[in-house]
Amino acid sequence: MAPEGRALHLNAFIQGVGHHEAAWRHPETDPGRLTDVRYFQEVARVAERGLFDSVFFADALSLTEDVRYQPVRRPEPVTLLAAIAVATERIGLIATASTTFTEPYNLARQFASVDHISGGRAGWNIVTSSATSAAYNFGLREQPAHHDRYVRADEFIEVVTKLWDSWEDDAIIGDRAGGVYADPGKVHAIDHDGPLLRVRGPLNVPRSPQGRPVLVQAGSSEEGRDFAARHAEAIFTAQQDLGDAIAFATDVRRRAAASGRDPGTLRILPGLSAVIGDTEEAAQARGRELDELAIPDYGLLQLRRLAGVDLSGLRLDAPVPPGLFNGDDVESSKSRRALVAEIVRRERPTVRGLLRRLAGARGHRVVAGTPEQIADQIQTWFEAGAADGFNIMAPYLPGGLELFVDHVVPELRRRGLFRTAYEGSTLREHYGLPRPASRYATPDATLNAAARP
Amino acid sequence: MAPEGRALHLNAFIQGVGHHEAAWRHPETDPGRLTDVRYFQEVARVAERGLFDSVFFADALSLTEDVRYQPVRRPEPVTLLAAIAVATERIGLIATASTTFTEPYNLARQFASVDHISGGRAGWNIVTSSATSAAYNFGLREQPAHHDRYVRADEFIEVVTKLWDSWEDDAIIGDRAGGVYADPGKVHAIDHDGPLLRVRGPLNVPRSPQGRPVLVQAGSSEEGRDFAARHAEAIFTAQQDLGDAIAFATDVRRRAAASGRDPGTLRILPGLSAVIGDTEEAAQARGRELDELAIPDYGLLQLRRLAGVDLSGLRLDAPVPPGLFNGDDVESSKSRRALVAEIVRRERPTVRGLLRRLAGARGHRVVAGTPEQIADQIQTWFEAGAADGFNIMAPYLPGGLELFVDHVVPELRRRGLFRTAYEGSTLREHYGLPRPASRYATPDATLNAAARP
Repeated sequence: MAPEGRALHLNAFIQGVGHHEAAWRHPETDPGRLTDVRYFQEVARVAERGLFDSVFFADALSLTEDVRYQPVRRPEPVTLLAAIAVATERIGLIATASTTFTEPYNLARQFASVDHISGGRAGWNIVTSSATSAAYNFGLREQPAHHDRYVRADEFIEVVTKLWDSWEDDAIIGDRAGGVYADPGKVHAIDHDGPLLRVRGPLNVPRSPQGRPVLVQAGSSEEGRDFAARHAEAIFTAQQDLGDAIAFATDVRRRAAASGRDPGTLRILPGLSAVIGDTEEAAQARGRELDELAIPDYGLLQLRRLAGVDLSGLRLDAPVPPGLFNGDDVESSKSRRALVAEIVRRERPTVRGLLRRLAGARGHRVVAGTPEQIADQIQTWFEAGAADGFNIMAPYLPGGLELFVDHVVPELRRRGLFRTAYEGSTLREHYGLPRPASRYATPDATLNAAARP
Repeated sequence: MAPEGRALHLNAFIQGVGHHEAAWRHPETDPGRLTDVRYFQEVARVAERGLFDSVFFADALSLTEDVRYQPVRRPEPVTLLAAIAVATERIGLIATASTTFTEPYNLARQFASVDHISGGRAGWNIVTSSATSAAYNFGLREQPAHHDRYVRADEFIEVVTKLWDSWEDDAIIGDRAGGVYADPGKVHAIDHDGPLLRVRGPLNVPRSPQGRPVLVQAGSSEEGRDFAARHAEAIFTAQQDLGDAIAFATDVRRRAAASGRDPGTLRILPGLSAVIGDTEEAAQARGRELDELAIPDYGLLQLRRLAGVDLSGLRLDAPVPPGLFNGDDVESSKSRRALVAEIVRRERPTVRGLLRRLAGARGHRVVAGTPEQIADQIQTWFEAGAADGFNIMAPYLPGGLELFVDHVVPELRRRGLFRTAYEGSTLREHYGLPRPASRYATPDATLNAAARP
């Protein structure tokens, strides 16, 4: 249906009551529902009505001082996924969890459990937790170094995938008459004894429907790209410019090939905040309405965290000083800072202009327009190889996502770009990813599996 | 409704397809559903139909070699609770989680999240994880010492309850027009800096409906009792004998009073496996039917783990040798071993007899009889002060629980012993426990709360 047989993928990034930082002040949102699980179930069902591949929750392991200006995060994402799983049928469910501040046995088990609970729809967005404020909640006096976090993440992924593989697919026999529940020869200790982690296994949950939940990654630093190239099956990324996005996709696929992977199995989804209106003017007015609700003090707080320097001398209507983002920041990711530095280099905004620029989607691309114009952008990037799909960041929720589902998705479908029905039932099937075999699968098991009708 | 105004409490302990070790071989169970979340939702709804206070999942952080003989554990309990929460309305939801092998920030957040997701029905069964096999999954070469685990558990509880308190109840202002979401003065860093844990806080989830999820505990060692006396609001315990149960309850309440707590706020629930039949003979026949499905090799495996010694010289029809449980065991809890040693001392069974004795409910009390006879036992223990209620362990599920709900619960109600409707909507309300105030509540907040209509 899509050009060259490629399929377009859509993920709904669910963030609070919307990605615009002032969404909670918008009359169409209800921030009082942010601890009400039914709100999240409803948003997920909107995305499922649109036949999205997945919904996704970002995460951070600390509370920053934003609480005055911004609704606090919702329930913890893994528990939230479990609650959404049983209120949806087909849509994939991706949650963020940290390799730095969790134990691999617990994490492997919880994601395998969500995969069971959802019938094969779980995905794990792997993060290494860049914020120092998170380190303070886990016994540390400072943030572990960027490189050290990625070293642990590599070994962590190895342990988690071993645990997911520790039960072969046909380990359960279930012979009630003979009194044999499972074949112990097909349930494997992993005996991992590495530089940082020692885990014996096996996991205490049988292999999950997808074999392994889908691995997702969003880091764009050099090390983040290499890590994604080695492990990620879907990649979320912030890209402002078509050329940069093509270069990013080309680079990551090249790195994947260098790691011995088939680069065609990576799904790259840049973020896209779509502000939708019946006319371009109406869309832009909606965007302005949100921008005007943004609180400058909040924007400056965010900017200070991004720059890692004192901003008290800054005037809102003066240009952003060059070199503002050259400092040694501790509270945001390198790649995030590089993205904003690039916006400043390219557009030379005033401080107020930059705050407005970031208010829409924290540095992700914002497009305001008619459903046809949004679809044009999606089509252009997709056909140019800049994207396998998009991480849709509705400026306000659920209304902004409803507009996308009811107006942009049908337009994409009219152009033959997007599915008209779910063809599979697992997240792997939606993304067109293979189901991995267990690394412990015995030749016998393979023969038995092949011999099955 | 109950004698002296006391209320009887019932918890449904959900274990696999039943507590009898052969339940999975029984024709009325379906072990194939143990990874199907709908099975657990259905069992929870049966308990809710019976107006039980709560359902409960035990847990262990390893897989033992039992896999040949026993269905593996279900999805991880916290994710499972979230999925059950949204399929039930009123029943409390208790999951086990370890203070030894989790991070307090993650645990506090997940239980607060389940409390939000369920509208105030979460409880945490605190364990310190006694199995060496669990230690092997978390980087250790041996199990941490019993005392050291409890020292960590004490500090862990302190941190978790501080995190649950870190948002005052009225911290969220939600002033959209004024642009003030929350009052930062009512969201507190906890700045915990203890011997073992350092956690800054605050939690990144607002205070949950119960303030704090209910704290449950089941350890019966000396240290376990002291720990329960200091922290637990509900206590699950294995008691075979009325006199011992009264002594246990008296002892724990005395310790609670010594810790400065009101001993009347502890809810003590001994385990009870009820094998129910229309006649006593029918109930006993049902029990025998299950016992005959038990696999002696599995029983011996369990016994070996409990005794911590080689059993190869043991003959099934010889008496259990005295001193079998004097060894230095590493794979089961001290109190569990003491319980079984006491059964041996009292009943002097053969090895086969002991295996049968343990097959029903792993050392918990098994009563076979008519609904009236089961109700008699419950009434006797309740009125004697041996129990505030019972941890009902159906020998097979969901059938065994359905019999209890449909026949024993109505009999308890006829006797005026059990509720005829849920009076509250939170687990705390079901158990008659107070809702704790935040330790950080400011005098102003208290005044404001008092001044509310």
